[in-house]
Amino acid sequence: MNNYRAVIEYDGTDFSGFQIQKGDVRTVQKEIYKVLKKLLPDTKRFSYAGRTDAGVHAKNQVISFDTGLEPDLYRFKWQFNCMVPGDIVMKSVIGTDGFFDARREAVSRRYCYYVVNNNHCSVFFRRYCVMLTNELDTKAMSEALKVFKGVHDFAAFSNEDEEAFTIREVTDISLNRYDEGLIKFSIEANSFLYNMVRKIIGTLLEIGQDKRDIDSIYTAFEDKDKTKTAKTAPARGLFLESVKY
Amino acid sequence: MNNYRAVIEYDGTDFSGFQIQKGDVRTVQKEIYKVLKKLLPDTKRFSYAGRTDAGVHAKNQVISFDTGLEPDLYRFKWQFNCMVPGDIVMKSVIGTDGFFDARREAVSRRYCYYVVNNNHCSVFFRRYCVMLTNELDTKAMSEALKVFKGVHDFAAFSNEDEEAFTIREVTDISLNRYDEGLIKFSIEANSFLYNMVRKIIGTLLEIGQDKRDIDSIYTAFEDKDKTKTAKTAPARGLFLESVKY
Repeated sequence: MNNYRAVIEYDGTDFSGFQIQKGDVRTVQKEIYKVLKKLLPDTKRFSYAGRTDAGVHAKNQVISFDTGLEPDLYRFKWQFNCMVPGDIVMKSVIGTDGFFDARREAVSRRYCYYVVNNNHCSVFFRRYCVMLTNELDTKAMSEALKVFKGVHDFAAFSNEDEEAFTIREVTDISLNRYDEGLIKFSIEANSFLYNMVRKIIGTLLEIGQDKRDIDSIYTAFEDKDKTKTAKTAPARGLFLESVKY
Repeated sequence: MNNYRAVIEYDGTDFSGFQIQKGDVRTVQKEIYKVLKKLLPDTKRFSYAGRTDAGVHAKNQVISFDTGLEPDLYRFKWQFNCMVPGDIVMKSVIGTDGFFDARREAVSRRYCYYVVNNNHCSVFFRRYCVMLTNELDTKAMSEALKVFKGVHDFAAFSNEDEEAFTIREVTDISLNRYDEGLIKFSIEANSFLYNMVRKIIGTLLEIGQDKRDIDSIYTAFEDKDKTKTAKTAPARGLFLESVKY
């Protein structure tokens, strides 16, 4: 068996998430499978780094798979990109010497979230951000996001089942403001709970609008009560940015 | 009468160009008219800076119009953006003290053209660029583009009728290379002939692929023979970037 590792980019707008599902549901994994089945019919042990939800995009999703075949990689990438729909692209593919598994061997994932704080949004960006007209207090949000850094029980900042193990370590979290009201949030952790980034962003955006204070984050860590944290921010502003190994 | 000046951005992909046409053709001007007719029914003397072709985008198209009404401009912009389709947005609108005409008073226009010189293209950029796999010689293109600068008869670099006045002045032309093979061309002139930017870009891309030499530009200026210049580059890489007054 030969083992390959590839980097995939996709526009999540028209997908019901990454993971394959039963029934006639368009997912990224399903579209990738269709092409792999034609090019490398014996593909086995398919794995991926981040299970993005419906509407979430990825700049550098990492996948891995085994095959008994030995494709010419330049040609394989070219054929894959010709056959896959236009909202998915393979950016790179390499052979590994071992048994690389894109999910198990990932050390950390980084997600980004884009908000446009303006009374209009660029037509070129509208599928990839959330527009907020109320002026956001970036200083208050910059203070608040520090509270998320470190090891915490993120139960209140997720939509996981009650039994789930909900302790995670956020290793980096930041925000930057650019021209025309564009705000980019960036957050890195070893792994993320279901909806964790979007619940954290939702909370920060409420703090930025003075609808919530920093203390509510500490309270939420203690109470583990997801009904008291902010709404899950919309999927379309969220990108799986990169994965570290 | 009150006179207004607005900046409009649009994704040209699904439009048959800016200018209104007879019949059931979707154009940017038609969509803008539909909304103006509702918000300011007496709109007169509508004007615009650049007549972009089918598939061409604009970051800062400028329009102007008169009306006897006195809209609150914050509210007008908001309503306009709620009513117009998602591939058009009004970025700003101001009242003028005079009789501003967006076309007649324009001193120069700047267009940009994006090429991705790589064997794959970002899903987020595929509607806004042309992908070329052959490695482009940016040094050769940088030398060649200087030849276009200045006052020339651009007859061969346009698809104008034979009788048209074809002398124009290119005041600035440059290219920059960014990550992942992205090349941005930028060109400014007092005004442009029909397909002029796309014929110039087509020529530069052939020079970058060693399919043509610099001398062919001088020859084309003299011969005025549009059949001997390169093909018109695809519309989707072209943006009306800005207009100077």
